[in-house]
Amino acid sequence: MNIDEIVKEANKAKIKLMGLSTEIKNRALEAVAKNIEKNKEKIYEANKKDLECAATLVESGKITKATYGRLKLDENKMRDMIQGIYDVIKLEDPVNKTLFARELDDKLILKKVTTPIGVLGIIFEARPDVISQISSLAIKSGNAVILKGGSEANNTNAAIFEIITEALNYVEGFPKNAVNLVFSHDDIKEMLSKDGYIDLIIPRGSNKLVKYIQENTKIPVLGHASGICHIFVDKSADFDMAKKICIDAKIQYPTACNAVETILIHKDFAHQNDLKAALKEANIEVIENPEEFGVEYSDTILNIKVVEGLNEAIEHINTFGSHHTDSIITNDNENAEIFMNNVDSAGVFKNASTRFSDGFRYGFGAEVGISTNKTHARGPVGLDGLCIYKYKLEGHGQTVKEYAAGEKTFKHKDL
Amino acid sequence: MNIDEIVKEANKAKIKLMGLSTEIKNRALEAVAKNIEKNKEKIYEANKKDLECAATLVESGKITKATYGRLKLDENKMRDMIQGIYDVIKLEDPVNKTLFARELDDKLILKKVTTPIGVLGIIFEARPDVISQISSLAIKSGNAVILKGGSEANNTNAAIFEIITEALNYVEGFPKNAVNLVFSHDDIKEMLSKDGYIDLIIPRGSNKLVKYIQENTKIPVLGHASGICHIFVDKSADFDMAKKICIDAKIQYPTACNAVETILIHKDFAHQNDLKAALKEANIEVIENPEEFGVEYSDTILNIKVVEGLNEAIEHINTFGSHHTDSIITNDNENAEIFMNNVDSAGVFKNASTRFSDGFRYGFGAEVGISTNKTHARGPVGLDGLCIYKYKLEGHGQTVKEYAAGEKTFKHKDL
Repeated sequence: MNIDEIVKEANKAKIKLMGLSTEIKNRALEAVAKNIEKNKEKIYEANKKDLECAATLVESGKITKATYGRLKLDENKMRDMIQGIYDVIKLEDPVNKTLFARELDDKLILKKVTTPIGVLGIIFEARPDVISQISSLAIKSGNAVILKGGSEANNTNAAIFEIITEALNYVEGFPKNAVNLVFSHDDIKEMLSKDGYIDLIIPRGSNKLVKYIQENTKIPVLGHASGICHIFVDKSADFDMAKKICIDAKIQYPTACNAVETILIHKDFAHQNDLKAALKEANIEVIENPEEFGVEYSDTILNIKVVEGLNEAIEHINTFGSHHTDSIITNDNENAEIFMNNVDSAGVFKNASTRFSDGFRYGFGAEVGISTNKTHARGPVGLDGLCIYKYKLEGHGQTVKEYAAGEKTFKHKDL
Repeated sequence: MNIDEIVKEANKAKIKLMGLSTEIKNRALEAVAKNIEKNKEKIYEANKKDLECAATLVESGKITKATYGRLKLDENKMRDMIQGIYDVIKLEDPVNKTLFARELDDKLILKKVTTPIGVLGIIFEARPDVISQISSLAIKSGNAVILKGGSEANNTNAAIFEIITEALNYVEGFPKNAVNLVFSHDDIKEMLSKDGYIDLIIPRGSNKLVKYIQENTKIPVLGHASGICHIFVDKSADFDMAKKICIDAKIQYPTACNAVETILIHKDFAHQNDLKAALKEANIEVIENPEEFGVEYSDTILNIKVVEGLNEAIEHINTFGSHHTDSIITNDNENAEIFMNNVDSAGVFKNASTRFSDGFRYGFGAEVGISTNKTHARGPVGLDGLCIYKYKLEGHGQTVKEYAAGEKTFKHKDL
């Protein structure tokens, strides 16, 4: 099938997926997990082909060693991949939840009920385990999905996709073409042009990829291009706490999007030099470079700025941050409240590491991604973020005429 | 100020608006209502100027009589405008509501709290009363707003805007430049290019305007370009009910977006001809034209299609509808359930007129617009649709390291 046909078929599948029972969806997920388990060797073989090709690309400098590492599927990743599907089975079905029920009038009942969004477009890079992860989240949330992986992983992606499709085709009541994979680079452009047919794009990959996608589509994009997180060490901060949190927020996983990039220190914080020394001792390269405010180092480098006070810190973060996650270290509750209200970020923390900003740590059970959007979903996004709602109204022949004429009035009684 | 400066100032105002108390917001709204009341005559004078100009445009055929009518402010509209503001004061503050609170671990509390979206861009046509309506909704939801009205109403818009600004400038604690108005046609293009600085665009006007905006911006657009609503009269439908609902859905307000355009009749519905006759008797022009499926008549015209059954009806609606509001008339509960699950529209009704699809009728107290989007907000949108949320995490020095190392585990206990 070409991309137009795939989009068309996915839109047919989406209608059938919308009304699917939790039981069928879980049965589909189990079938997928079992088929991957059964066909592990096929996947390793395909992965071996990709790795051979990638090895020459590493040699010629066309891809990085890190990319090669992400591409490689080992026993651990395979186990996590399969376990991940069983974890999704255990999650609560996000669809068909009644968000509210209201008696508009006698025998005229309005319900706001969650539904799948429709068709998701997922564009990802090297990591082939994304296919099974995103497919399971899509299945559980009743969305059709069109996946486009990185070309370095084409063999692995195709193998996993075939195994998933084979499993789904045997599940009674599960629609065909719910999960789709496209291969060519041109397909990305095509996907991005399908507004009205693809309802949400989720990019998983480099800042560059995300930025490109955000700038080249009218379809809503869920995600974040960059993670420029801050910690503001207030005048009243406890030194040990500030040290511990700043080091954790940088060192625990320096390339993570929720790692800290700039530390803002109150000019009257007594341990300014001690803090800098502690950071250096933790093998962090400490710089003080105003030219690099808003730079995401993705490395053990921290930029430091001494600020006049809370207001400058807030303004700095709102100006140079990426509205991802920012934390204040303070013993002043009032300052903490002002900070948390006025910093315009998805996560605003008090006396905690920015690294907590994560769907699993928040207890969502799954994470679709972290969003810095201002509409739909913000912060770590769980299964809920793949749903919207519809209004179901059940009447007994009511018409608007009587209400418009004032002969009848609404009750608007919440049930 | 030029548009760049306005956008910049609005982004400053938005930060201050985010943390504003309900009290200050309501005080601001009251000041606005009182100042409009006090300066009614100024508004009428400005409106008179616009009307004189518009009268010549009607004569030369450049604007319609309907546009002239929407432009004209009379005593009733003025009273509604002022009352509308007092109504918004009474609405619950949508900001700073805790959507959930969770103990991630001892003394590590996560809260998901509603916040304003940020800066709204409102692009509207002839009706100058939109300014006060949207400004009040923006104020109540803590959003900054940039308004662009139709040029026919420039004098009226400017007068109302000045009166609003004058009132707001005297409210202690209320930020400057929260409400902004731009005038030139070029400003629309400029507004649409400000992604990252304007967070949500809400168009209020013709299908053409909405479509233009949707196709020319990367900013999320809340609204609907067209309202192509259907009624499916099932085999088991009660004839009197079908008649009553079909007539109401068309006649009660033929130009409304939630008026019905196409009636799908089950081939075995016994009263097919009676229904057609009844529609004609109600002065509806009944046509049966497959070429016009998906046409929004905005007039007392109904297209009719006889269908094989429920599945064809659902497929027709999902293909030709605008995902706005569709209703089934039936006595078969199972069919109703299938219809309501599988029709992919913001409103899916059973035995009720499509005209109920409306924020006031749903009991929202205010309506920003009706959305056919698949993300953020769908269906009639109330004040909630102008909000998003942020995650507030309060810790006592916790770092991620211990959890990653397995020394500590999360509790994830909902509070």
